[in-house]
Amino acid sequence: MSTNNRPDLYTSLSPTLLHLYDVSSSIVVIIDVLRATSTIATALYNGARCVIPVDSISRCMEIGRQIQGVTAGERDGQIAEGLEYGNSPFEYPREFIEGKTLVLTTTNGTRLLHMSLEKGAREIITGSFPNLSAVCDHLIEMKKNVILACAAWKDRINMEDSLFAGAVISRVREHFAINCDSSHIAEKMYEKGKKDLFDFMKKNEASHYHRLMGFGLEKDIRYCLTPDGANVLPLYKEGKLLLK
Amino acid sequence: MSTNNRPDLYTSLSPTLLHLYDVSSSIVVIIDVLRATSTIATALYNGARCVIPVDSISRCMEIGRQIQGVTAGERDGQIAEGLEYGNSPFEYPREFIEGKTLVLTTTNGTRLLHMSLEKGAREIITGSFPNLSAVCDHLIEMKKNVILACAAWKDRINMEDSLFAGAVISRVREHFAINCDSSHIAEKMYEKGKKDLFDFMKKNEASHYHRLMGFGLEKDIRYCLTPDGANVLPLYKEGKLLLK
Repeated sequence: MSTNNRPDLYTSLSPTLLHLYDVSSSIVVIIDVLRATSTIATALYNGARCVIPVDSISRCMEIGRQIQGVTAGERDGQIAEGLEYGNSPFEYPREFIEGKTLVLTTTNGTRLLHMSLEKGAREIITGSFPNLSAVCDHLIEMKKNVILACAAWKDRINMEDSLFAGAVISRVREHFAINCDSSHIAEKMYEKGKKDLFDFMKKNEASHYHRLMGFGLEKDIRYCLTPDGANVLPLYKEGKLLLK
Repeated sequence: MSTNNRPDLYTSLSPTLLHLYDVSSSIVVIIDVLRATSTIATALYNGARCVIPVDSISRCMEIGRQIQGVTAGERDGQIAEGLEYGNSPFEYPREFIEGKTLVLTTTNGTRLLHMSLEKGAREIITGSFPNLSAVCDHLIEMKKNVILACAAWKDRINMEDSLFAGAVISRVREHFAINCDSSHIAEKMYEKGKKDLFDFMKKNEASHYHRLMGFGLEKDIRYCLTPDGANVLPLYKEGKLLLK
Protein backbone atom coordinates (compact mmCIF):
# COMPACT_ATOMS: atom_id res chain seq x y z
CA MET A 1 0.00 0.00 0.00
CA SER A 2 1.21 3.50 -0.84
CA THR A 3 0.47 6.99 0.31
CA ASN A 4 -3.14 7.99 0.88
CA ASN A 5 -3.95 4.34 1.46
CA ARG A 6 -4.50 3.80 -2.21
CA PRO A 7 -3.31 0.43 -3.46
CA ASP A 8 -0.54 0.28 -6.07
CA LEU A 9 -1.10 -0.34 -9.75
CA TYR A 10 1.69 -1.48 -12.06
CA THR A 11 1.76 -2.48 -15.71
CA SER A 12 4.00 -5.28 -16.97
CA LEU A 13 4.21 -4.80 -20.73
CA SER A 14 5.78 -8.23 -21.37
CA PRO A 15 5.91 -11.53 -19.43
CA THR A 16 9.69 -10.98 -19.29
CA LEU A 17 9.07 -7.99 -17.02
CA LEU A 18 6.63 -9.65 -14.62
CA HIS A 19 9.33 -10.59 -12.08
CA LEU A 20 9.94 -6.88 -11.41
CA TYR A 21 6.62 -6.57 -9.61
CA ASP A 22 5.27 -8.00 -6.39
CA VAL A 23 2.90 -10.56 -7.86
CA SER A 24 2.12 -12.23 -4.55
CA SER A 25 0.43 -9.16 -3.08
CA SER A 26 -1.55 -8.39 -6.22
CA ILE A 27 -4.53 -9.10 -8.37
CA VAL A 28 -3.02 -9.99 -11.74
CA VAL A 29 -5.04 -9.09 -14.85
CA ILE A 30 -3.97 -11.32 -17.74
CA ILE A 31 -4.28 -9.36 -21.00
CA ASP A 32 -4.17 -11.05 -24.39
CA VAL A 33 -6.46 -8.86 -26.44
CA LEU A 34 -5.91 -10.54 -29.84
CA ARG A 35 -7.56 -12.87 -29.13
CA ALA A 36 -7.32 -15.24 -26.15
CA THR A 37 -8.77 -13.13 -23.36
CA SER A 38 -11.42 -11.63 -25.66
CA THR A 39 -12.52 -15.15 -26.58
CA ILE A 40 -12.51 -16.29 -22.94
CA ALA A 41 -14.81 -13.41 -21.93
CA THR A 42 -17.07 -14.11 -24.91
CA ALA A 43 -17.41 -17.84 -24.26
CA LEU A 44 -18.25 -17.25 -20.59
CA TYR A 45 -20.63 -14.43 -21.45
CA ASN A 46 -22.40 -16.81 -23.81
CA GLY A 47 -22.89 -19.39 -21.11
CA ALA A 48 -19.83 -21.65 -21.23
CA ARG A 49 -19.59 -23.53 -17.93
CA CYS A 50 -15.89 -22.67 -17.69
CA VAL A 51 -12.75 -22.22 -19.75
CA ILE A 52 -9.69 -24.37 -19.05
CA PRO A 53 -6.53 -22.68 -20.33
CA VAL A 54 -3.75 -25.09 -21.25
CA ASP A 55 -0.32 -24.56 -22.69
CA SER A 56 -0.03 -27.32 -25.28
CA ILE A 57 -2.05 -29.00 -27.98
CA SER A 58 -1.48 -32.47 -26.52
CA ARG A 59 -2.69 -31.37 -23.09
CA CYS A 60 -5.71 -29.73 -24.73
CA MET A 61 -6.61 -32.99 -26.49
CA GLU A 62 -6.07 -35.01 -23.31
CA ILE A 63 -8.29 -32.84 -21.12
CA GLY A 64 -10.85 -32.49 -23.89
CA ARG A 65 -11.20 -36.30 -23.97
CA GLN A 66 -11.35 -36.66 -20.19
CA ILE A 67 -14.13 -34.14 -19.61
CA GLN A 68 -15.76 -34.19 -23.05
CA GLY A 69 -14.93 -30.53 -23.51
CA VAL A 70 -14.71 -28.42 -26.63
CA THR A 71 -11.05 -28.32 -27.66
CA ALA A 72 -9.73 -25.16 -29.26
CA GLY A 73 -6.52 -23.52 -30.28
CA GLU A 74 -4.58 -22.20 -33.23
CA ARG A 75 -1.04 -22.30 -34.41
CA ASP A 76 0.03 -19.90 -37.13
CA GLY A 77 -3.53 -18.78 -37.77
CA GLN A 78 -4.97 -22.26 -38.36
CA ILE A 79 -6.95 -24.55 -36.07
CA ALA A 80 -4.24 -26.77 -34.58
CA GLU A 81 -4.15 -30.36 -35.75
CA GLY A 82 -6.11 -32.58 -33.40
CA LEU A 83 -8.29 -29.75 -32.07
CA GLU A 84 -11.83 -28.87 -33.09
CA TYR A 85 -12.10 -25.09 -32.98
CA GLY A 86 -10.04 -21.92 -33.28
CA ASN A 87 -9.32 -18.73 -31.32
CA SER A 88 -12.05 -16.53 -32.76
CA PRO A 89 -14.69 -15.18 -30.36
CA PHE A 90 -17.22 -15.64 -33.16
CA GLU A 91 -16.87 -19.41 -32.91
CA TYR A 92 -18.52 -19.34 -29.48
CA PRO A 93 -22.10 -18.05 -29.74
CA ARG A 94 -24.61 -19.02 -27.06
CA GLU A 95 -26.30 -21.62 -29.28
CA PHE A 96 -23.06 -23.53 -29.40
CA ILE A 97 -21.11 -22.98 -26.19
CA GLU A 98 -23.83 -22.71 -23.51
CA GLY A 99 -23.34 -25.29 -20.78
CA LYS A 100 -20.11 -26.60 -22.32
CA THR A 101 -16.52 -26.49 -21.13
CA LEU A 102 -14.01 -24.85 -23.45
CA VAL A 103 -10.46 -26.25 -23.29
CA LEU A 104 -8.36 -23.53 -24.89
CA THR A 105 -4.68 -23.66 -25.70
CA THR A 106 -2.92 -20.37 -26.29
CA THR A 107 0.77 -19.68 -26.09
CA ASN A 108 1.40 -16.20 -24.75
CA GLY A 109 -1.60 -15.79 -22.44
CA THR A 110 -1.53 -19.24 -20.86
CA ARG A 111 2.17 -19.06 -20.11
CA LEU A 112 1.69 -15.72 -18.39
CA LEU A 113 -1.18 -17.10 -16.35
CA HIS A 114 0.98 -19.99 -15.19
CA MET A 115 3.84 -17.62 -14.36
CA SER A 116 1.47 -15.55 -12.21
CA LEU A 117 0.25 -18.69 -10.50
CA GLU A 118 3.78 -19.86 -9.72
CA LYS A 119 4.62 -16.47 -8.24
CA GLY A 120 1.64 -16.83 -5.92
CA ALA A 121 -0.68 -14.18 -7.35
CA ARG A 122 -3.34 -13.20 -4.86
CA GLU A 123 -5.98 -13.46 -7.56
CA ILE A 124 -5.93 -13.91 -11.33
CA ILE A 125 -8.55 -12.51 -13.70
CA THR A 126 -8.54 -12.01 -17.47
CA GLY A 127 -9.06 -8.71 -19.23
CA SER A 128 -9.96 -7.62 -22.74
CA PHE A 129 -11.95 -4.82 -24.33
CA PRO A 130 -15.11 -6.98 -24.46
CA ASN A 131 -15.04 -7.11 -20.64
CA LEU A 132 -13.35 -3.78 -19.90
CA SER A 133 -15.99 -2.40 -17.54
CA ALA A 134 -16.29 -5.63 -15.56
CA VAL A 135 -12.52 -5.61 -14.98
CA CYS A 136 -12.45 -1.95 -13.94
CA ASP A 137 -15.44 -2.29 -11.60
CA HIS A 138 -13.85 -5.31 -9.94
CA LEU A 139 -10.47 -3.62 -9.43
CA ILE A 140 -12.09 -0.53 -7.91
CA GLU A 141 -14.26 -2.67 -5.65
CA MET A 142 -11.45 -4.92 -4.40
CA LYS A 143 -9.08 -2.12 -3.27
CA LYS A 144 -6.02 -4.37 -3.63
CA ASN A 145 -2.72 -3.92 -5.44
CA VAL A 146 -3.00 -4.60 -9.17
CA ILE A 147 -0.65 -5.74 -11.90
CA LEU A 148 -1.88 -5.31 -15.47
CA ALA A 149 0.02 -8.13 -17.14
CA CYS A 150 0.28 -7.99 -20.91
CA ALA A 151 0.77 -11.32 -22.66
CA ALA A 152 2.61 -9.63 -25.54
CA TRP A 153 3.84 -11.68 -28.50
CA LYS A 154 6.71 -14.05 -27.85
CA ASP A 155 7.73 -11.62 -25.10
CA ARG A 156 7.79 -8.65 -27.45
CA ILE A 157 5.62 -5.77 -26.26
CA ASN A 158 2.57 -5.31 -28.42
CA MET A 159 0.29 -2.41 -29.06
CA GLU A 160 -3.13 -3.88 -28.36
CA ASP A 161 -2.33 -5.27 -24.90
CA SER A 162 -0.65 -1.98 -24.00
CA LEU A 163 -3.73 -0.10 -25.23
CA PHE A 164 -5.98 -2.21 -23.04
CA ALA A 165 -3.78 -1.55 -20.01
CA GLY A 166 -4.08 2.15 -20.85
CA ALA A 167 -7.87 1.88 -21.11
CA VAL A 168 -8.08 0.32 -17.65
CA ILE A 169 -5.75 2.93 -16.15
CA SER A 170 -7.72 5.81 -17.67
CA ARG A 171 -10.82 4.50 -15.86
CA VAL A 172 -9.40 3.50 -12.49
CA ARG A 173 -6.48 5.90 -11.99
CA GLU A 174 -7.93 7.91 -9.13
CA HIS A 175 -8.38 4.78 -7.04
CA PHE A 176 -4.73 3.73 -7.24
CA ALA A 177 -1.22 5.00 -6.60
CA ILE A 178 0.52 4.68 -9.97
CA ASN A 179 4.29 5.08 -9.72
CA CYS A 180 5.04 3.26 -12.92
CA ASP A 181 6.19 4.77 -16.21
CA SER A 182 4.90 1.77 -18.16
CA SER A 183 1.42 2.61 -16.90
CA HIS A 184 1.80 6.26 -17.84
CA ILE A 185 3.08 5.31 -21.29
CA ALA A 186 0.17 2.91 -21.83
CA GLU A 187 -2.39 5.47 -20.69
CA LYS A 188 -0.90 8.17 -22.88
CA MET A 189 -1.04 5.93 -25.92
CA TYR A 190 -4.62 4.92 -25.17
CA GLU A 191 -5.65 8.56 -24.89
CA LYS A 192 -4.10 9.18 -28.27
CA GLY A 193 -5.87 6.22 -29.88
CA LYS A 194 -9.17 5.85 -28.06
CA LYS A 195 -11.34 7.63 -30.61
CA ASP A 196 -10.77 4.81 -33.09
CA LEU A 197 -8.57 1.99 -31.84
CA PHE A 198 -8.85 0.02 -35.07
CA ASP A 199 -7.63 2.97 -37.07
CA PHE A 200 -4.90 3.64 -34.49
CA MET A 201 -3.62 0.07 -34.81
CA LYS A 202 -3.68 0.36 -38.57
CA LYS A 203 -1.97 3.74 -38.80
CA ASN A 204 0.71 2.77 -36.32
CA GLU A 205 1.47 -0.48 -38.11
CA ALA A 206 0.76 -2.67 -35.07
CA SER A 207 2.37 -6.02 -35.84
CA HIS A 208 -0.70 -8.01 -34.81
CA TYR A 209 -2.96 -5.89 -36.95
CA HIS A 210 -0.96 -6.96 -39.98
CA ARG A 211 -0.79 -10.59 -38.91
CA LEU A 212 -4.53 -10.98 -38.35
CA MET A 213 -5.57 -8.89 -41.35
CA GLY A 214 -3.41 -11.26 -43.38
CA PHE A 215 -5.62 -14.09 -42.11
CA GLY A 216 -8.78 -12.17 -43.12
CA LEU A 217 -9.76 -11.43 -39.53
CA GLU A 218 -10.77 -7.76 -39.64
CA LYS A 219 -14.08 -8.61 -37.96
CA ASP A 220 -12.22 -10.25 -35.07
CA ILE A 221 -9.91 -7.28 -34.62
CA ARG A 222 -12.83 -4.83 -34.59
CA TYR A 223 -14.74 -6.89 -32.03
CA CYS A 224 -11.67 -7.37 -29.83
CA LEU A 225 -11.08 -3.60 -29.72
CA THR A 226 -14.68 -2.73 -28.78
CA PRO A 227 -15.58 -2.27 -25.09
CA ASP A 228 -18.11 -4.31 -23.22
CA GLY A 229 -19.45 -6.71 -25.84
CA ALA A 230 -19.13 -9.57 -23.32
CA ASN A 231 -19.00 -7.77 -20.03
CA VAL A 232 -18.30 -10.51 -17.49
CA LEU A 233 -15.43 -11.21 -15.10
CA PRO A 234 -13.45 -14.42 -15.67
CA LEU A 235 -11.77 -15.46 -12.43
CA TYR A 236 -9.14 -18.20 -12.23
CA LYS A 237 -9.79 -20.93 -9.68
CA GLU A 238 -8.20 -24.36 -9.49
CA GLY A 239 -7.27 -24.66 -13.13
CA LYS A 240 -10.40 -23.06 -14.53
CA LEU A 241 -11.66 -19.65 -15.54
CA LEU A 242 -15.16 -19.18 -14.18
CA LEU A 243 -17.54 -16.29 -13.84
CA LYS A 244 -17.08 -14.43 -10.58
CA MET B 1 17.62 -6.98 -43.84
CA SER B 2 13.95 -6.61 -44.64
CA THR B 3 11.86 -5.69 -47.62
CA ASN B 4 13.00 -2.83 -49.83
CA ASN B 5 16.53 -3.40 -48.61
CA ARG B 6 15.99 -1.17 -45.66
CA PRO B 7 17.73 -2.32 -42.52
CA ASP B 8 15.65 -3.23 -39.46
CA LEU B 9 15.17 -1.00 -36.45
CA TYR B 10 13.98 -2.34 -33.10
CA THR B 11 13.52 -0.74 -29.70
CA SER B 12 14.30 -2.60 -26.51
CA LEU B 13 12.54 -0.68 -23.75
CA SER B 14 14.36 -2.49 -20.92
CA PRO B 15 17.63 -4.47 -20.65
CA THR B 16 15.44 -7.47 -19.76
CA LEU B 17 14.07 -7.39 -23.31
CA LEU B 18 17.40 -7.10 -25.14
CA HIS B 19 17.73 -10.85 -25.70
CA LEU B 20 14.66 -10.75 -27.97
CA TYR B 21 16.60 -8.93 -30.65
CA ASP B 22 19.50 -9.89 -32.86
CA VAL B 23 22.21 -7.85 -31.19
CA SER B 24 25.07 -9.39 -33.16
CA SER B 25 23.87 -8.00 -36.49
CA SER B 26 23.11 -4.55 -35.12
CA ILE B 27 24.38 -1.18 -34.08
CA VAL B 28 23.24 -0.86 -30.47
CA VAL B 29 22.41 2.63 -29.21
CA ILE B 30 22.72 2.71 -25.42
CA ILE B 31 20.18 5.18 -24.02
CA ASP B 32 20.32 6.45 -20.44
CA VAL B 33 18.93 9.94 -20.77
CA LEU B 34 18.89 10.86 -17.07
CA ARG B 35 21.80 11.22 -16.95
CA ALA B 36 24.61 8.86 -17.93
CA THR B 37 24.55 9.10 -21.72
CA SER B 38 23.81 12.84 -21.61
CA THR B 39 26.86 13.32 -19.40
CA ILE B 40 29.03 11.12 -21.64
CA ALA B 41 28.12 13.18 -24.71
CA THR B 42 28.75 16.40 -22.80
CA ALA B 43 32.17 15.38 -21.44
CA LEU B 44 33.35 14.29 -24.90
CA TYR B 45 31.90 17.40 -26.52
CA ASN B 46 33.87 19.46 -24.02
CA GLY B 47 37.11 17.78 -24.93
CA ALA B 48 37.44 14.78 -22.61
CA ARG B 49 39.97 12.36 -24.11
CA CYS B 50 37.60 9.46 -23.52
CA VAL B 51 35.03 8.10 -21.08
CA ILE B 52 35.57 4.71 -19.46
CA PRO B 53 32.24 3.25 -18.29
CA VAL B 54 32.57 0.85 -15.36
CA ASP B 55 30.00 -1.04 -13.35
CA SER B 56 31.22 -0.63 -9.78
CA ILE B 57 32.63 2.01 -7.47
CA SER B 58 35.67 -0.12 -6.60
CA ARG B 59 36.49 -0.65 -10.27
CA CYS B 60 36.05 3.09 -10.86
CA MET B 61 38.53 3.90 -8.08
CA GLU B 62 41.00 1.27 -9.30
CA ILE B 63 41.04 2.47 -12.90
CA GLY B 64 41.02 6.10 -11.77
CA ARG B 65 44.24 5.44 -9.84
CA GLN B 66 45.91 3.50 -12.65
CA ILE B 67 45.40 6.10 -15.36
CA GLN B 68 45.02 9.19 -13.19
CA GLY B 69 41.51 9.71 -14.50
CA VAL B 70 38.64 11.70 -13.10
CA THR B 71 36.46 9.30 -11.11
CA ALA B 72 32.73 9.88 -11.10
CA GLY B 73 29.52 8.23 -10.09
CA GLU B 74 26.52 8.56 -7.81
CA ARG B 75 24.51 6.28 -5.64
CA ASP B 76 21.11 7.45 -4.43
CA GLY B 77 21.68 10.95 -5.73
CA GLN B 78 24.99 11.54 -3.92
CA ILE B 79 28.58 11.35 -5.17
CA ALA B 80 29.58 7.80 -4.26
CA GLU B 81 32.05 7.42 -1.40
CA GLY B 82 35.59 7.21 -2.73
CA LEU B 83 34.78 9.02 -6.00
CA GLU B 84 35.41 12.65 -6.86
CA TYR B 85 32.52 13.78 -9.02
CA GLY B 86 28.88 13.07 -9.76
CA ASN B 87 26.61 12.30 -12.74
CA SER B 88 25.65 15.83 -13.69
CA PRO B 89 26.62 17.04 -17.17
CA PHE B 90 27.25 20.45 -15.61
CA GLU B 91 30.21 19.08 -13.70
CA TYR B 92 32.12 18.63 -16.95
CA PRO B 93 32.68 22.01 -18.63
CA ARG B 94 35.57 22.38 -21.06
CA GLU B 95 37.73 24.25 -18.52
CA PHE B 96 37.69 21.19 -16.34
CA ILE B 97 37.41 18.07 -18.49
CA GLU B 98 39.41 18.94 -21.62
CA GLY B 99 42.18 16.45 -22.22
CA LYS B 100 41.21 14.30 -19.24
CA THR B 101 39.81 10.79 -19.03
CA LEU B 102 36.51 10.38 -17.23
CA VAL B 103 36.00 7.08 -15.43
CA LEU B 104 32.25 6.90 -14.90
CA THR B 105 30.33 4.31 -12.96
CA THR B 106 26.61 4.04 -13.63
CA THR B 107 24.39 1.10 -12.89
CA ASN B 108 21.72 0.78 -15.56
CA GLY B 109 23.61 2.12 -18.59
CA THR B 110 26.91 0.35 -17.98
CA ARG B 111 25.27 -3.00 -17.40
CA LEU B 112 23.36 -2.66 -20.67
CA LEU B 113 26.54 -1.74 -22.51
CA HIS B 114 28.27 -4.85 -21.16
CA MET B 115 25.27 -7.00 -22.09
CA SER B 116 25.45 -5.68 -25.64
CA LEU B 117 29.16 -6.38 -25.74
CA GLU B 118 28.69 -9.96 -24.54
CA LYS B 119 26.05 -10.54 -27.19
CA GLY B 120 28.53 -9.43 -29.82
CA ALA B 121 27.02 -6.13 -30.90
CA ARG B 122 28.32 -5.04 -34.26
CA GLU B 123 28.88 -1.54 -32.91
CA ILE B 124 27.94 0.28 -29.71
CA ILE B 125 27.24 4.00 -29.49
CA THR B 126 25.54 6.11 -26.82
CA GLY B 127 22.51 8.28 -27.35
CA SER B 128 20.87 11.15 -25.50
CA PHE B 129 18.98 14.30 -26.42
CA PRO B 130 22.19 16.38 -26.24
CA ASN B 131 23.57 14.29 -29.12
CA LEU B 132 20.32 13.38 -30.88
CA SER B 133 21.26 14.65 -34.35
CA ALA B 134 24.69 13.01 -34.29
CA VAL B 135 23.09 9.66 -33.48
CA CYS B 136 20.44 9.99 -36.19
CA ASP B 137 22.94 11.11 -38.84
CA HIS B 138 25.19 8.17 -38.01
CA LEU B 139 22.38 5.60 -38.15
CA ILE B 140 21.17 6.90 -41.50
CA GLU B 141 24.69 6.93 -42.88
CA MET B 142 25.62 3.42 -41.72
CA LYS B 143 22.62 1.62 -43.26
CA LYS B 144 22.86 -1.25 -40.77
CA ASN B 145 20.31 -2.87 -38.48
CA VAL B 146 19.73 -0.86 -35.32
CA ILE B 147 18.61 -1.62 -31.78
CA LEU B 148 17.64 1.36 -29.66
CA ALA B 149 18.45 -0.03 -26.21
CA CYS B 150 16.93 1.79 -23.27
CA ALA B 151 18.80 1.45 -19.97
CA ALA B 152 15.57 1.91 -18.00
CA TRP B 153 15.65 1.94 -14.19
CA LYS B 154 16.42 -1.35 -12.47
CA ASP B 155 14.91 -3.00 -15.54
CA ARG B 156 11.67 -1.05 -15.27
CA ILE B 157 10.77 0.83 -18.44
CA ASN B 158 11.11 4.56 -18.04
CA MET B 159 9.61 7.48 -19.84
CA GLU B 160 12.68 9.52 -20.77
CA ASP B 161 14.60 6.70 -22.46
CA SER B 162 11.44 5.71 -24.33
CA LEU B 163 10.96 9.32 -25.40
CA PHE B 164 14.48 9.46 -26.76
CA ALA B 165 13.94 6.25 -28.73
CA GLY B 166 10.79 7.88 -30.12
CA ALA B 167 12.72 11.01 -31.06
CA VAL B 168 15.26 8.98 -33.02
CA ILE B 169 12.55 6.97 -34.76
CA SER B 170 10.63 10.09 -35.77
CA ARG B 171 13.79 11.33 -37.53
CA VAL B 172 15.07 8.14 -39.15
CA ARG B 173 11.90 6.14 -39.81
CA GLU B 174 11.93 6.32 -43.60
CA HIS B 175 15.40 4.79 -43.73
CA PHE B 176 14.44 1.66 -41.79
CA ALA B 177 11.96 -1.20 -41.76
CA ILE B 178 10.25 -0.93 -38.38
CA ASN B 179 8.22 -4.01 -37.50
CA CYS B 180 8.25 -3.42 -33.79
CA ASP B 181 5.36 -2.23 -31.64
CA SER B 182 7.74 -0.92 -28.96
CA SER B 183 9.13 1.45 -31.58
CA HIS B 184 5.68 2.57 -32.63
CA ILE B 185 4.67 3.11 -29.00
CA ALA B 186 7.82 5.14 -28.32
CA GLU B 187 7.34 7.26 -31.42
CA LYS B 188 3.69 7.91 -30.64
CA MET B 189 4.55 9.03 -27.13
CA TYR B 190 7.33 11.29 -28.39
CA GLU B 191 4.96 12.91 -30.89
CA LYS B 192 2.56 13.58 -28.05
CA GLY B 193 5.24 15.10 -25.84
CA LYS B 194 7.73 16.72 -28.17
CA LYS B 195 6.44 20.28 -27.86
CA ASP B 196 7.62 20.41 -24.26
CA LEU B 197 9.30 17.27 -22.99
CA PHE B 198 9.92 18.68 -19.53
CA ASP B 199 6.26 19.49 -19.13
CA PHE B 200 5.30 16.08 -20.56
CA MET B 201 7.49 14.30 -18.00
CA LYS B 202 5.99 16.41 -15.23
CA LYS B 203 2.36 15.98 -16.24
CA ASN B 204 2.72 12.27 -16.76
CA GLU B 205 4.38 11.78 -13.42
CA ALA B 206 7.53 10.19 -14.83
CA SER B 207 9.23 8.44 -11.93
CA HIS B 208 12.65 9.87 -12.73
CA TYR B 209 11.26 13.37 -12.96
CA HIS B 210 10.14 13.09 -9.36
CA ARG B 211 13.36 11.47 -8.21
CA LEU B 212 15.65 14.11 -9.71
CA MET B 213 13.42 17.06 -8.84
CA GLY B 214 13.63 15.76 -5.27
CA PHE B 215 17.41 16.16 -5.51
CA GLY B 216 17.01 19.72 -6.82
CA LEU B 217 18.10 18.83 -10.35
CA GLU B 218 15.57 20.65 -12.54
CA LYS B 219 18.41 22.23 -14.51
CA ASP B 220 19.86 18.78 -15.27
CA ILE B 221 16.51 17.44 -16.41
CA ARG B 222 15.91 20.40 -18.72
CA TYR B 223 19.36 20.09 -20.26
CA CYS B 224 19.04 16.32 -20.69
CA LEU B 225 15.75 16.75 -22.56
CA THR B 226 17.07 19.39 -24.97
CA PRO B 227 18.38 18.30 -28.39
CA ASP B 228 21.88 18.87 -29.64
CA GLY B 229 23.55 20.70 -26.77
CA ALA B 230 26.59 18.40 -27.12
CA ASN B 231 26.20 17.03 -30.60
CA VAL B 232 28.95 14.43 -30.90
CA LEU B 233 28.97 10.66 -31.42
CA PRO B 234 30.46 8.53 -28.60
CA LEU B 235 31.59 5.20 -30.02
CA TYR B 236 32.64 2.27 -27.84
CA LYS B 237 36.02 0.76 -28.60
CA GLU B 238 38.11 -1.52 -26.41
CA GLY B 239 36.65 -0.43 -23.10
CA LYS B 240 36.38 3.25 -23.92
CA LEU B 241 33.86 5.66 -25.35
CA LEU B 242 35.63 7.91 -27.84
CA LEU B 243 34.53 10.41 -30.44
CA LYS B 244 33.91 8.82 -33.79
